[in-house]
Amino acid sequence: MLKDIIENNENYQPGLSIDCVIFGFHDNQLKVLLIKVDRNPKWSLPGGFIPIDQDIDTAAVTILNDRTGVDGIFLRQFATFGKVKRNDQHFDKKVLEYLEIEEAKGKWLMRRFVTIGYYALVDFLKTIPKPSSDREIVEWIDHKEVPELILDHKEILDKALNTLRTELNLMPIGYNLLPEKFTIPELQKLYETILDKKLDRRNFLRKITNIGILKKLDEKKSNVAHKAPNLYSFDKEKYDEVLKNGLNQGW
Amino acid sequence: MLKDIIENNENYQPGLSIDCVIFGFHDNQLKVLLIKVDRNPKWSLPGGFIPIDQDIDTAAVTILNDRTGVDGIFLRQFATFGKVKRNDQHFDKKVLEYLEIEEAKGKWLMRRFVTIGYYALVDFLKTIPKPSSDREIVEWIDHKEVPELILDHKEILDKALNTLRTELNLMPIGYNLLPEKFTIPELQKLYETILDKKLDRRNFLRKITNIGILKKLDEKKSNVAHKAPNLYSFDKEKYDEVLKNGLNQGW
Repeated sequence: MLKDIIENNENYQPGLSIDCVIFGFHDNQLKVLLIKVDRNPKWSLPGGFIPIDQDIDTAAVTILNDRTGVDGIFLRQFATFGKVKRNDQHFDKKVLEYLEIEEAKGKWLMRRFVTIGYYALVDFLKTIPKPSSDREIVEWIDHKEVPELILDHKEILDKALNTLRTELNLMPIGYNLLPEKFTIPELQKLYETILDKKLDRRNFLRKITNIGILKKLDEKKSNVAHKAPNLYSFDKEKYDEVLKNGLNQGW
Repeated sequence: MLKDIIENNENYQPGLSIDCVIFGFHDNQLKVLLIKVDRNPKWSLPGGFIPIDQDIDTAAVTILNDRTGVDGIFLRQFATFGKVKRNDQHFDKKVLEYLEIEEAKGKWLMRRFVTIGYYALVDFLKTIPKPSSDREIVEWIDHKEVPELILDHKEILDKALNTLRTELNLMPIGYNLLPEKFTIPELQKLYETILDKKLDRRNFLRKITNIGILKKLDEKKSNVAHKAPNLYSFDKEKYDEVLKNGLNQGW
């Protein structure tokens, strides 16, 4: 892919890239989808470049789909990163040496490029990571155990996580991260994992019920020894309404 | 400035610009600082390009200061705009004809450039708009009476306003928009103007007091016939603390 961009430099928006922070929830962990190119010791966020004939939002969807197999998901732009030194020496040394690309010299790819950060919330069980070549590994990693990342990707990831925490106060988010049917304790665990703190059970129940987006199903969780908890799903219509108008009436 | 960028194309980050939405509060109006270049019938947001040796955040501060005389203010990146057609034909027709710049052809400035939006909150009375040339007019305009803007600047302005409304629920904002001393009704009016709705006086008083950022002064508003209201100022230390940790304890 990098080779294609260097050879077809003119077909891409100069000096600009996109990086995606993809969150999934599984085993009570908030996981992040990361990529590693075989000989490079560091991991990276899935990212790519922007064809000159594509809107940036479209390019983000395409990159996400091409590099991870993830499709039709909740994707939001959250910030743009452009420190002068953000990709200093990254491409001209390590990667290019590795790719043995001589002709790259002097092209925009060799200078600073600014990157637009998007974050995605996906259903872990429906997401099958798909590497774009057999030189790549794509893996879900617990956000608390993220290894060393290239460039400023750690900063991008941290900012995405902070945005997600803030947005918990502004909109519902469970629809994209939980399976179709879930229990209240499972939903609470999702919130606790994102916020990284324990929540009071009764307060949580009251608040989440007040939002009015839950549908109690006539069904109980199976495989549970006794006192099986009730299953719920989201009332999609109301959910979308709250998503549009915001959670917090605030002032 | 445009001429400089075309002649020194290599010194700027290719394909990228910055636009600033500058809000001020005066006469119970939320105003926006807009620029008009004399013969162009449309107005625009103050904006500019990014020197290759500057971080984008630094470039935003510089642009804001150079084009408006505004300094040391609350400035935040809020979104990046990159539709393919966003500056279609803008520069290659109108502006270049006007500037009579032949050599611009084929440079990145002639293609789509993506723009990073920043918004600023400033004290209206301390802000003296400063045009960067005598061909420009810089003016405060009520956000409800914004004339036709170039490119997608209306979309950028709307998005900034929406961000500001959302952030009213997340952080205090009055410090940057009000004079040092103010009355509670003045503060309430600021909130009402941004949210474009009436607020209940008692609820507002209770909520704003609970945040714990106000300092009651031993001083009353002068020039008021009778029952002069008390003056307040912000407790800057507490204000900054809330700004850092967020207004809403939420979950």
